[in-house]
Amino acid sequence: MDEKFFSFQVTATDQKARCGVLRTPHGSVETPVFMPVGTQATVKTMTPKELEEVGASLILSNTYHLMLRPGQNIIKKMGGLHGFMQWPKPILTDSGGFQVFSLANQRVVKEEGVLFQSYVDGEKILLTPEKAIEIQEALGADIMMCFDECPPFPSTQKEIETSLNLSLRWARRCKRAKTKNNQALFGIIQGGIFLDLRQQSLEQTIEIDFDGYALGGLSVGEDQGRMIEVVSEIAHRMPESKPRYLMGVGTPGDLLECVYHGLDMFDCVMPTKNARNGGIFTSFGAINLANSQYKDDPAPLDPDCTCYTCQNFSRAYLRHLFMSSEVLGARLNTLHNLSFYVTFMRQIRQAIQEKRLDAFRKDFYQRRSQNS
Amino acid sequence: MDEKFFSFQVTATDQKARCGVLRTPHGSVETPVFMPVGTQATVKTMTPKELEEVGASLILSNTYHLMLRPGQNIIKKMGGLHGFMQWPKPILTDSGGFQVFSLANQRVVKEEGVLFQSYVDGEKILLTPEKAIEIQEALGADIMMCFDECPPFPSTQKEIETSLNLSLRWARRCKRAKTKNNQALFGIIQGGIFLDLRQQSLEQTIEIDFDGYALGGLSVGEDQGRMIEVVSEIAHRMPESKPRYLMGVGTPGDLLECVYHGLDMFDCVMPTKNARNGGIFTSFGAINLANSQYKDDPAPLDPDCTCYTCQNFSRAYLRHLFMSSEVLGARLNTLHNLSFYVTFMRQIRQAIQEKRLDAFRKDFYQRRSQNS
Repeated sequence: MDEKFFSFQVTATDQKARCGVLRTPHGSVETPVFMPVGTQATVKTMTPKELEEVGASLILSNTYHLMLRPGQNIIKKMGGLHGFMQWPKPILTDSGGFQVFSLANQRVVKEEGVLFQSYVDGEKILLTPEKAIEIQEALGADIMMCFDECPPFPSTQKEIETSLNLSLRWARRCKRAKTKNNQALFGIIQGGIFLDLRQQSLEQTIEIDFDGYALGGLSVGEDQGRMIEVVSEIAHRMPESKPRYLMGVGTPGDLLECVYHGLDMFDCVMPTKNARNGGIFTSFGAINLANSQYKDDPAPLDPDCTCYTCQNFSRAYLRHLFMSSEVLGARLNTLHNLSFYVTFMRQIRQAIQEKRLDAFRKDFYQRRSQNS
Repeated sequence: MDEKFFSFQVTATDQKARCGVLRTPHGSVETPVFMPVGTQATVKTMTPKELEEVGASLILSNTYHLMLRPGQNIIKKMGGLHGFMQWPKPILTDSGGFQVFSLANQRVVKEEGVLFQSYVDGEKILLTPEKAIEIQEALGADIMMCFDECPPFPSTQKEIETSLNLSLRWARRCKRAKTKNNQALFGIIQGGIFLDLRQQSLEQTIEIDFDGYALGGLSVGEDQGRMIEVVSEIAHRMPESKPRYLMGVGTPGDLLECVYHGLDMFDCVMPTKNARNGGIFTSFGAINLANSQYKDDPAPLDPDCTCYTCQNFSRAYLRHLFMSSEVLGARLNTLHNLSFYVTFMRQIRQAIQEKRLDAFRKDFYQRRSQNS
């Protein structure tokens, strides 16, 4: 990878936690960072202008959905994902692997790749490591992910081992298939909840040599304790000089713990998806707008929050919008939740820079226990 | 009505068409004006900030929906509709009449009022002229509407006559029920497509003396020619010194023709509802984003439009959002359509001020015939 297009530097540490700067062709990203999820070339309900106002610096989009609709060729013709959706900042695309294994019908896994049926028009599609890279190059993501197999939870140790070996062979093919030097490629460490398999996957993935490393196959059904156990054992062994990304996680508490163990990047649908279901993240814990106690509550969602939603609207109004299935409710809740996540990560970075992450964690758990 | 709270002045005329200024406790409105519809205390998908940016100066909200959910007491407690939805400019509320007659189940019409069943919780509710005014006073609208019976189309002349006499008795009760002098009350002229009944309703409604007059019961199924016939016969006989409001109309062409015949105020769900279904209004006519010709079209919806949507996004992207049922598509389309309607009314006002409405109409039809 060409340093002029992509680099990562650790700028501060506090025990195992670190702050860093990720440089990409579309600008710099301060880590630890939370990436809002823009599955279908849109972070649901939000304009790119609002995402920038919220402070989002890097978003994730999904190869699987976009290859099926509208197709990578249309997106490429419209100037890639950045031009198509008018998001000027960095984008990470997943490889389609996770979705093929969690969403696709009539799936057949072969050494060559995965055969599945399109949910848009029923067409049979073969997604291979080479194809996943070709699509991600057409989309023009700043960071691409290797195509990997994502085994279900629970799986036996033997199944996980077979699967991670296939993922390693696919990872080598992904690296060979890459043709552009202005897009980074991250490897994905699998191994489920088995620490020796995680270690094996870690070593062999590092051997291939990627621009960054992700932990895959977590937050797929195991309990939070198991996830933190894997993270605490593996995160600090991931290369120090490369960004460390935990895929698909999680609650504010999950993010805080995983940063504590040395991880840098996160994505999750939780703030956006929960928002649409009336689930609100606040500085004193999560609340749900369906609760009738909010029906005439004039307070904002979170009195500590400075987002447009909290500066203008009452819980009573937001509850009314939610109960009436009004789109504006989904919008205002999403704006708040993303604002909360982005602000939370900024507070974590500041705590690391000031070497007071332990105090920050203590305060975090105290606030929540007081309000529960 | 106290002049210091509410007044209307005609400021320019071109043949029967007029420009005016409507003064209300929440600011002035230039007429002819289009009112976006905010049924459930939200113009669907839009924030109040966006409505202001689009140039909306007066919106409509629905008594029927709001009395059922969240209820006028909660809204009153939150500072009325203006405070509840954070819209600082004027609001007109309908009386609930039209919705009771078009939407409600198990409806029984009596001299006293209408008994119907709530769609929210199945409760039996009696809506009377007095209750409709009480609710609109609690909502705090700048302009309230009389509670009237809205007979279906087609109805016989006898049915329409019986109905308009009931509506006249209800109109007198509405006027008597009104207790606040900072809210205007408009009367509604009924009579279906029968010109002699319209004339009769007009005269008797004027006799009661309201702050403005509306034409109700049009655009309910009759063809556009019939509607224009009624408007052309009745509009110019409505009091010159009071605002003239045509309820529930219509396409840009409808608005232009009705302004031409002397009407001042309009509301319609068309720009917002069509937007959510991919229907886009442009300066060269209506288009539908479902059409596959737009799938890789890099042009904006309307090259003549300066709205956020047209300044930033391609038809290809907006079609993708529509085909993918993404909320952002509904938002961006709504923003454009409302911007188009508001701008169109501003252009009409300018044409009247410059006494060139005939030339404006000619140009309007020419552009559309060239592009159809």
